[in-house]
Amino acid sequence: MTDAAYPTSPRSRARRYPDRATYDEAQVHAVLDAGLLAHVGYVIDGQPFVTPTAYWREGRRLYWHGSAASRMIRAQAEGLPVCVTVSHLDGLIAARSAFVHSIQYRSVMAFGRARRVEGLDAQRAALAALVDRLYPGRTGEVRPPTDNELKQTSIIEMEIEEAAAKVKSGGVARIEADDAWDAWSGVIPIATVVGERIADAVQSAGTPVSPSLGLYLEGARLDRVLSAAASGRVEV
Amino acid sequence: MTDAAYPTSPRSRARRYPDRATYDEAQVHAVLDAGLLAHVGYVIDGQPFVTPTAYWREGRRLYWHGSAASRMIRAQAEGLPVCVTVSHLDGLIAARSAFVHSIQYRSVMAFGRARRVEGLDAQRAALAALVDRLYPGRTGEVRPPTDNELKQTSIIEMEIEEAAAKVKSGGVARIEADDAWDAWSGVIPIATVVGERIADAVQSAGTPVSPSLGLYLEGARLDRVLSAAASGRVEV
Repeated sequence: MTDAAYPTSPRSRARRYPDRATYDEAQVHAVLDAGLLAHVGYVIDGQPFVTPTAYWREGRRLYWHGSAASRMIRAQAEGLPVCVTVSHLDGLIAARSAFVHSIQYRSVMAFGRARRVEGLDAQRAALAALVDRLYPGRTGEVRPPTDNELKQTSIIEMEIEEAAAKVKSGGVARIEADDAWDAWSGVIPIATVVGERIADAVQSAGTPVSPSLGLYLEGARLDRVLSAAASGRVEV
Repeated sequence: MTDAAYPTSPRSRARRYPDRATYDEAQVHAVLDAGLLAHVGYVIDGQPFVTPTAYWREGRRLYWHGSAASRMIRAQAEGLPVCVTVSHLDGLIAARSAFVHSIQYRSVMAFGRARRVEGLDAQRAALAALVDRLYPGRTGEVRPPTDNELKQTSIIEMEIEEAAAKVKSGGVARIEADDAWDAWSGVIPIATVVGERIADAVQSAGTPVSPSLGLYLEGARLDRVLSAAASGRVEV
């Protein structure tokens, strides 16, 4: 935990429920490191697009990748403003009044400019960072990308200029008018979890799992697996 | 299943992996009805924003809501172009080469213009639709919203002008160059599931759960619960 915080401006500052928002770097990174899929927003000719994509973080930079031929990648190659949002749904809050129903969540909105990572060596390093971020040590287990494979893929990087995390936990808000009602109220927790591994029938039937996948145990929470992998821990 | 499909244009048509894309209404709606959290993209002064928010569908309309005072709601009240994206992460594909690693997912990008639902009666009906879509019959169990509560909330509706669903399932892509490697390859399934209910300690300790929450059984997949609730089924 540090005292570092992201800069804010009217663009990133939370207006509604400012008590749920934080710009603290450690808390922003904790939400980012618990996720795998980001929703990247960008604008082409005034039209907003939101593309779901795998992402990863290094320091104050976010990365994602895609086909070199895709619309998103071509648009984002040269400094396009983007908003990268990552969310975790943690629970449903069922209340005794329609109005008090809510959800528990953690989210980050990060703002910056997208740029393409140039050069095969830089691309190679970035792709290795993605694979090892998800599966620690996996680049040592698998075939490295060829130059031709790297040329088919583009990596986008974004320096986080501003970011805000928003977290809502807790339970049912108490409203006096609800006391006279008797519907069950409380929290229904929601979690994203790892299922039972399915070995490739041709390549890996009956073979032991690679060490790099050791965190992905059946029943483990994905956010905890990803956080552990990001911080180099070997246990969830 | 019908033959109806959403219109497409260069904005919504998938260029990459067109075989993974569909504009079929039933398939688009199936992805939408399995979700709770959408990522809504919009543009203010050229800057993209992506806000995660609970949403629901009725016919070819999407709805979401927020504080009447929020930036998103104020910006979207009068016909702002939006892109609403819903995604489900279904699995991780671990391959024998860095390049072949991938994810299994279902997603929809829906395009249209956001407008505020005007009038307390229309707002009341829309909020009831949200609550009953998540928890069938719950509006009959809980205190209805007061006019004052409705005035604090705005509902946004968007007629879906264009939409595309993209689905990637299946396993490890076979590449000959990978045969010489022996890393474990296969699929690590991912699912978002319901946890054990936590009753509000003051309001509901020891009381039976309301019928409206009956689909939310511990261990149930949230996408299946939401799909069942959306289609009026009483079992997952």
